[in-house]
Amino acid sequence: MTYCVGMQLNAGLIFMSDTRTNAGVDNISTFRKMYSWEVPGERVITVMAAGNLATTQSVISQLEERTKALQDRRPSILEAPSMFQVANIIGETLRETIRSGALAGANAESQFGATLIVGGQIAGQKMCMFLIYPEGNFIEATTDTPFFQSGETKYGRPILVRAYEPGMSFAEAAKLLMVSFDSTLKANLSVGLPFDFQIVRKDECRIAHNARIEADDPYFHEISRGWGTALKQAFRSLPEYDLSL
Amino acid sequence: MTYCVGMQLNAGLIFMSDTRTNAGVDNISTFRKMYSWEVPGERVITVMAAGNLATTQSVISQLEERTKALQDRRPSILEAPSMFQVANIIGETLRETIRSGALAGANAESQFGATLIVGGQIAGQKMCMFLIYPEGNFIEATTDTPFFQSGETKYGRPILVRAYEPGMSFAEAAKLLMVSFDSTLKANLSVGLPFDFQIVRKDECRIAHNARIEADDPYFHEISRGWGTALKQAFRSLPEYDLSL
Repeated sequence: MTYCVGMQLNAGLIFMSDTRTNAGVDNISTFRKMYSWEVPGERVITVMAAGNLATTQSVISQLEERTKALQDRRPSILEAPSMFQVANIIGETLRETIRSGALAGANAESQFGATLIVGGQIAGQKMCMFLIYPEGNFIEATTDTPFFQSGETKYGRPILVRAYEPGMSFAEAAKLLMVSFDSTLKANLSVGLPFDFQIVRKDECRIAHNARIEADDPYFHEISRGWGTALKQAFRSLPEYDLSL
Repeated sequence: MTYCVGMQLNAGLIFMSDTRTNAGVDNISTFRKMYSWEVPGERVITVMAAGNLATTQSVISQLEERTKALQDRRPSILEAPSMFQVANIIGETLRETIRSGALAGANAESQFGATLIVGGQIAGQKMCMFLIYPEGNFIEATTDTPFFQSGETKYGRPILVRAYEPGMSFAEAAKLLMVSFDSTLKANLSVGLPFDFQIVRKDECRIAHNARIEADDPYFHEISRGWGTALKQAFRSLPEYDLSL
């Protein structure tokens, strides 16, 4: 499985993805699930992938035009006139990849399925974020639904629902993502460290911060320990149930 | 969907289940999913059901021997010599019910599936709790895994994993269940109030406390509000991510 979260803040976009892939619990590996394209100052596009790894790696390779020689590559997502067009191109690439995988084998398309979170900005246009379905269509984040999760979304959702605020700083949002990922990690073996982490500030059209949170990252461990303690304190602060009722 | 949790404490057993059933989001109903059999002082057995409602209601009716006239009913689970035998009888009834449902129609057995949490005690014997699978086999709660969840388990799991302690009082454990159910409710429409709630004290062999937490229950709403506030405070108390890293 996988866990990816993209959040739209007033200040910009923030992304985090884990790196664990598995084909059974006895066959786990580490693969990057976050990919970016950047023409600093002109556009920045970040994609996070959840689902069949062969599908998502193939989609990324096609977007990077890796069928062509290095000097001939002019990825069309770097030439699309709008983020909506970028999402369209990525969605079509995803749908075709899934379809060709299903045609080649006897299995259903769902076997090759994948879901992508795509966010970014083109200079002079609105910053935006999309969730692209295996069918190639997509939805856009709005102020009503300002964050997208993909993969193993349930464990980490309650804290996002409760603590997310559009006006939060990147430092706070990073903390929120760490807590959400920690809750998922604690409950599900199919999500694992290291995490990839990225920030795009509004109207900068470049990657402002890019980091890999390794297994021994001191901040993540401080959050994980601290959250356990803080949760217990929060829990203790609530009134107990009156059994005489 | 459904959410049920059974916890084994040093002090006894505590159970909570929601009451929402749905066949699509436009067809929701309220049904009890917690059933008890009690010979006060001699034995107490509580079952919580998750899965296909026709299956679980049929299982309960069979356990209650509702095919017989009222005066002829002597439910075998009230005569079984041990809780292990009780779990066996319930597991067999479940498996046969699922199988007969699948035979009657063209659908796969999984359509009729259900999972049961069974807990209780027979006088002079050990208090115990089982999770019974659709196949009729089961696992027993131990000190390593002292609680079982069924249904929509993921949202409410992180707080259980973090705050459960075998030595907690029933009043604390009830609070923990309320928080876990509240986290689930906030994220998933298929789990809904009212909740059924029950406590069995160790070696009493009877139901010590039985309540229905209604939609307007003041304690539940106090916990729900308080937990939102306490979570945000807990979140604020943690150090922020250092973006200069």
